[in-house]
Amino acid sequence: MGVPDTQRPYQLEEDDNDRHHHNINSSPSSGDAELDSQHQTMTTNKKKNKYVVVEDDHDDTAKEELLSVEKLFENQPVPSWRKQLTFRAFFISFVLSILFSVIVMKLNLTTGIIPSLNVSAGLLGFFFVRTWTKFLDRCGLLNQPFTRQENTVIQTCVVASSGIAFSGGFGSYLFGMSERIAQQSKDSSDTKDPGLLWIIGFLFVVSFLGLFSVVPLRKIMIIDFKLTYPSGTATAHLINSFHTPEGVKLAKKQVRELGKFFSFSFLWGFFQWFYTAGDNCGFASFPSLGLKAYQNKFFFDFSATYVGVGMICPHIVNISVLLGGILSWGLMWPLIETRSGDWYDKELSPKDMNGLQGYKVFIAIALILGDGLYNFVKVLSRTLVALQSQLRSKDASGILPVKKHHGSPDVSSELSYDDQRRTQLFLKDQIPAWIAVGGYVVFAAISIATVPHIFPQLKWYHILVIYLFAPTLAFCNAYGCGLTDWSLASTYGKVAIFTIGTWAGSAHGGVLAGLAACGVMMNIVSTASDLTQDFKTGYLTLASPQSMFVSQVVGTAMGCVVSPCVFWLFYKAFSDLGMPESAYPAPYAVVFRNMAILGVEGVKSLPKNCLMLCGIFFGAAIAINVLKDCLGKKRGRFVPLPMAMAIPFYIGSYFAIDMCIGSLIVYLWGRVNKAKADAFVPAVASGLICGDGTWTLPASILALAGVQPPICMKFLSSSQNTRVDAFIAGKAH
Amino acid sequence: MGVPDTQRPYQLEEDDNDRHHHNINSSPSSGDAELDSQHQTMTTNKKKNKYVVVEDDHDDTAKEELLSVEKLFENQPVPSWRKQLTFRAFFISFVLSILFSVIVMKLNLTTGIIPSLNVSAGLLGFFFVRTWTKFLDRCGLLNQPFTRQENTVIQTCVVASSGIAFSGGFGSYLFGMSERIAQQSKDSSDTKDPGLLWIIGFLFVVSFLGLFSVVPLRKIMIIDFKLTYPSGTATAHLINSFHTPEGVKLAKKQVRELGKFFSFSFLWGFFQWFYTAGDNCGFASFPSLGLKAYQNKFFFDFSATYVGVGMICPHIVNISVLLGGILSWGLMWPLIETRSGDWYDKELSPKDMNGLQGYKVFIAIALILGDGLYNFVKVLSRTLVALQSQLRSKDASGILPVKKHHGSPDVSSELSYDDQRRTQLFLKDQIPAWIAVGGYVVFAAISIATVPHIFPQLKWYHILVIYLFAPTLAFCNAYGCGLTDWSLASTYGKVAIFTIGTWAGSAHGGVLAGLAACGVMMNIVSTASDLTQDFKTGYLTLASPQSMFVSQVVGTAMGCVVSPCVFWLFYKAFSDLGMPESAYPAPYAVVFRNMAILGVEGVKSLPKNCLMLCGIFFGAAIAINVLKDCLGKKRGRFVPLPMAMAIPFYIGSYFAIDMCIGSLIVYLWGRVNKAKADAFVPAVASGLICGDGTWTLPASILALAGVQPPICMKFLSSSQNTRVDAFIAGKAH
Repeated sequence: MGVPDTQRPYQLEEDDNDRHHHNINSSPSSGDAELDSQHQTMTTNKKKNKYVVVEDDHDDTAKEELLSVEKLFENQPVPSWRKQLTFRAFFISFVLSILFSVIVMKLNLTTGIIPSLNVSAGLLGFFFVRTWTKFLDRCGLLNQPFTRQENTVIQTCVVASSGIAFSGGFGSYLFGMSERIAQQSKDSSDTKDPGLLWIIGFLFVVSFLGLFSVVPLRKIMIIDFKLTYPSGTATAHLINSFHTPEGVKLAKKQVRELGKFFSFSFLWGFFQWFYTAGDNCGFASFPSLGLKAYQNKFFFDFSATYVGVGMICPHIVNISVLLGGILSWGLMWPLIETRSGDWYDKELSPKDMNGLQGYKVFIAIALILGDGLYNFVKVLSRTLVALQSQLRSKDASGILPVKKHHGSPDVSSELSYDDQRRTQLFLKDQIPAWIAVGGYVVFAAISIATVPHIFPQLKWYHILVIYLFAPTLAFCNAYGCGLTDWSLASTYGKVAIFTIGTWAGSAHGGVLAGLAACGVMMNIVSTASDLTQDFKTGYLTLASPQSMFVSQVVGTAMGCVVSPCVFWLFYKAFSDLGMPESAYPAPYAVVFRNMAILGVEGVKSLPKNCLMLCGIFFGAAIAINVLKDCLGKKRGRFVPLPMAMAIPFYIGSYFAIDMCIGSLIVYLWGRVNKAKADAFVPAVASGLICGDGTWTLPASILALAGVQPPICMKFLSSSQNTRVDAFIAGKAH
Repeated sequence: MGVPDTQRPYQLEEDDNDRHHHNINSSPSSGDAELDSQHQTMTTNKKKNKYVVVEDDHDDTAKEELLSVEKLFENQPVPSWRKQLTFRAFFISFVLSILFSVIVMKLNLTTGIIPSLNVSAGLLGFFFVRTWTKFLDRCGLLNQPFTRQENTVIQTCVVASSGIAFSGGFGSYLFGMSERIAQQSKDSSDTKDPGLLWIIGFLFVVSFLGLFSVVPLRKIMIIDFKLTYPSGTATAHLINSFHTPEGVKLAKKQVRELGKFFSFSFLWGFFQWFYTAGDNCGFASFPSLGLKAYQNKFFFDFSATYVGVGMICPHIVNISVLLGGILSWGLMWPLIETRSGDWYDKELSPKDMNGLQGYKVFIAIALILGDGLYNFVKVLSRTLVALQSQLRSKDASGILPVKKHHGSPDVSSELSYDDQRRTQLFLKDQIPAWIAVGGYVVFAAISIATVPHIFPQLKWYHILVIYLFAPTLAFCNAYGCGLTDWSLASTYGKVAIFTIGTWAGSAHGGVLAGLAACGVMMNIVSTASDLTQDFKTGYLTLASPQSMFVSQVVGTAMGCVVSPCVFWLFYKAFSDLGMPESAYPAPYAVVFRNMAILGVEGVKSLPKNCLMLCGIFFGAAIAINVLKDCLGKKRGRFVPLPMAMAIPFYIGSYFAIDMCIGSLIVYLWGRVNKAKADAFVPAVASGLICGDGTWTLPASILALAGVQPPICMKFLSSSQNTRVDAFIAGKAH
């Protein structure tokens, strides 16, 4: 899903067959059937695509054969780890990392919903390198063929780099420190405006720690525990499928489809631009459901990005968002507004935190915290239970390259050909433990020394405490993510906000200290889970851990420079960035800041009845989650997700309508041609997202250069139009 | 093409194979190879569709068999002529005639370009009756199956009825009499505003004459001369194909496609409506190519109707229209505008006929007259030459049921099975000659007695003279149309304008007399050619001439009531009907009135250099036609049509862009899948046209009821927007 709390990638309907016939990766050794089914639920449709293709081209007997993927690649030599790191790979990674940073930044600053972009990265990376190598091949200059290991290196580098655009907090904690956001919050005393240099410096000192903290653990996670990592596995399948003969054919078609929708989406963005002179102009302000609905933020805003996001996200996410919008802007806000003068001061501006805006923000926070807390407890307890059972069985049998599946003694302890080959290559290239430990200690020391200079409110001992706990939390997050595909990075971040914020206290700038601590924590925890995912991908594509590590280091370094620059571009180009009515409201920036204030100052200053409403919604979020889990996989999937419902509370539900249209397209396409839809939905969605995202780049450059769009497409009510026409006619004479 | 002068239906690329393999109808007996090839050129793609289907489903040997269409229908009994005339057929004809009158009226009042709607009428008629009979069949209540003869009766009735919407002159001579149009012309002294009752009366007394004048000639035209009548033939093939087993399948698919695009187009029209509060609001004013281009009438106006029209019209028509638009609004008008103050008075309103508007209208008239004159002379001379050779051979061999082909003695004089059967049935039911002659005399007498009461300026002797010449002209037009598919109705009308107008003289209301005479003439001539087409259709579908005649009478009577009512609806609903800037500028109304003024008053009052420019364009129109004919079929088809170029001169080229988009869709579709495009383009286009046309009905009822659309989608320049925003903000405080 990718709302900051939980980077759960998209999931589609579960398919029981999937589990029995196709589960190439053994599930984590656990007798817990429910836990097992949970992995299934999280299986992404990327993975399913691959199967669809295989099923299309082969009959049943062939399928058994295909269960051994590595047999297909037997004749392909695996290049040495140095050869996997080519210049072209890093060059393309750099280009893609700029593109994806722009896209992630745009999503951060508009709604905060970030779908999994791994498929797009995989497709585009494949497309670029393939084109390049084809070209060289024709010229007779090709020295080194394009391998899946190289593809994995690109993938890893891009993910590492664009991950920073999310964990850097440009849409949440970092931007929440700025004066502009502070003025919309309840406490504007403690601020730090964004600056390009200090952001780059800050990211450099905090982002590498997560990497070093998981390197020593990768063998335990991947080989010993055999964790699933659904996203990483899906990506690996995608890459593997690209490099089989049938896969190349399908990939070509997918790339063509992606290209078509990329161009369409780019040109559509370009066309829209011409009509956006001024506020409330253009297609993004189109009152497609009428003016009354528009005032309550119900309209289709013609955003190709969010239609694409809706196509990738599971239906329930899109419906939850829409439900949240209807509940809040359709029902609650109008009702609360009728109490103005009683519950809050009538004269307050609509943006004042003591007025209606306060209800919007704090009720959203209550929902997010309720959902976050429930999932934190759930995932953590599962992690601990699973870990305990795993460690117990390890005690019994010792750490082996092959681990017997606890609770399933019937599973043969012999490795399949695939596993043998993968394990062999994964263990061939080692990264010495001293590099990992040394790196962690060095970076932690640098960080403790420098970060307090950037944020004087955050003391060195705060950071030291974080770094003492961080490896454990990073491990927990990486392990939980391997089990469930949920990254709880921003929940850990929120924990840091509350603990460090309270510790520092309001007198000593607790708000800023909390936000900064959130950044330190989130970067470690988020990187840790991302990179373990990548190791899993590398394991399944026979990429060397060493080349993966180098690629991660390079990608992280790239991200530390590219992301702040991209943010800076947005910040300078769109002067109303972060304002609630603008095209880039950055909703989570206000939410994070207000959480920090809540942590430091308590709940005493909330408007009338707001605390009660918050309590109700906090409880409701937990209750909904309990209900979802009680109903089980089959019926539980119809229960909406509180986290997704919370987003439109603050910014309105226009993007929810886009996303539901995306869902509708996928649904109808599936009805017409299921196989084709499964194969091409990710490509079409990626095209829509990337095309619109790419247009953002020239759009912000035009804005920076002060080029005004020539036309305003304005929407006036009939009576207003009569007056304006009279005004224009009067001017003309 | 259907610009008033020449109702040439659409044509696509010529296909030489068509001629040798599929020409079921023998061509008119003439050794003139070029004339023969001309028929080929005019073969519509409706005919081709049918072949596409046949070719798809059968191999070559089967094709020879299929050359006998009637063998397929051998087992189907042909119902008696009374049984062909069912109540359901007339009921559906009535519904469709309202629909098509609305569509034709809308086209009349917007641009005057009317594509052939026969396919739509055929498809929709088939769909309705089929649904009804299926329903009855299921209930066990079906007494009489749906036959192709019944289908032909519907077709004939709808064509006769909606033909009145064109020949009634609601967009040309009749509306040109109104005061509103007169004020935009050079002479506003002589006017007659539309009135529902006198229009119905006028149409009743003039519309039946054409019918009676061709009835006696039908055997000569169809059986003896074996004229082609491409449109009538194509329609017959369509109807025949619907009733073969494969045809039913394809027709179903086509109807489904039509239904889909009908709904889309209707809903799109409905959606657009919401944004049209006020002038220059909504999608029809969308400056899709920028504001500067919009001011010069270059923009895409999102009209589903004209995209559909563009899909039906041949590419060269669409390109001609666009070329005309670029030449006039892109080049000439801006150039002439720079001469304001020299060529014409600077202070004149832009709508004044002595200013720029005069150039626009009179240059367009020059082009139309040049093209019209050339084609009039060409078709008439060909008609006479062909007629002479036909009569000469008739003198030699006597009138036989079977006519030997002159100049092609190798052609067997024996009739094919198809021809035998068709001729037999065509000659079985006879309409006595005394009915035709008696009817003509009675209606002429009534007309001579009543029309001068409606238009006092038109004397009884004017009408008598028209009626003395009319049967000859009607025969000429019917014969010419049979040869070339061009109906020169409005050219004959223009001849009446000039001759009767001059005869009456300006002192005695020559302008109105001319326009009224045009109406009398056009109605006879146009009906004559339409109805001979229908007889050809009936001949090919074994429909009885008697049932056809009754259907034509009923259809004409329907049209005389329905068309004026539909016009009245438009006239009352859209108060700015006929104004140049409105959505319904009725361009030909101004053109026809100014032609009448030109005929009566001469060229003395044209603005400076206008006469010279008119002369140049008149000459250019003839030169282009000569060039087209000299280049021959192959290369001549790339020469634009002056008639089509003239339309945007007055109203601008926004609809040209719609039509070119239609062309582009057809072209691209053909590139992707030629067979599918050929089979479904007419259905899709009909859906687009009919859906939008149907929306016009509720839209005008809403306008009549005074329901205002709620929103105005306005387009302001950046600077204007800033001022308007300030104004709105000021108002708000």
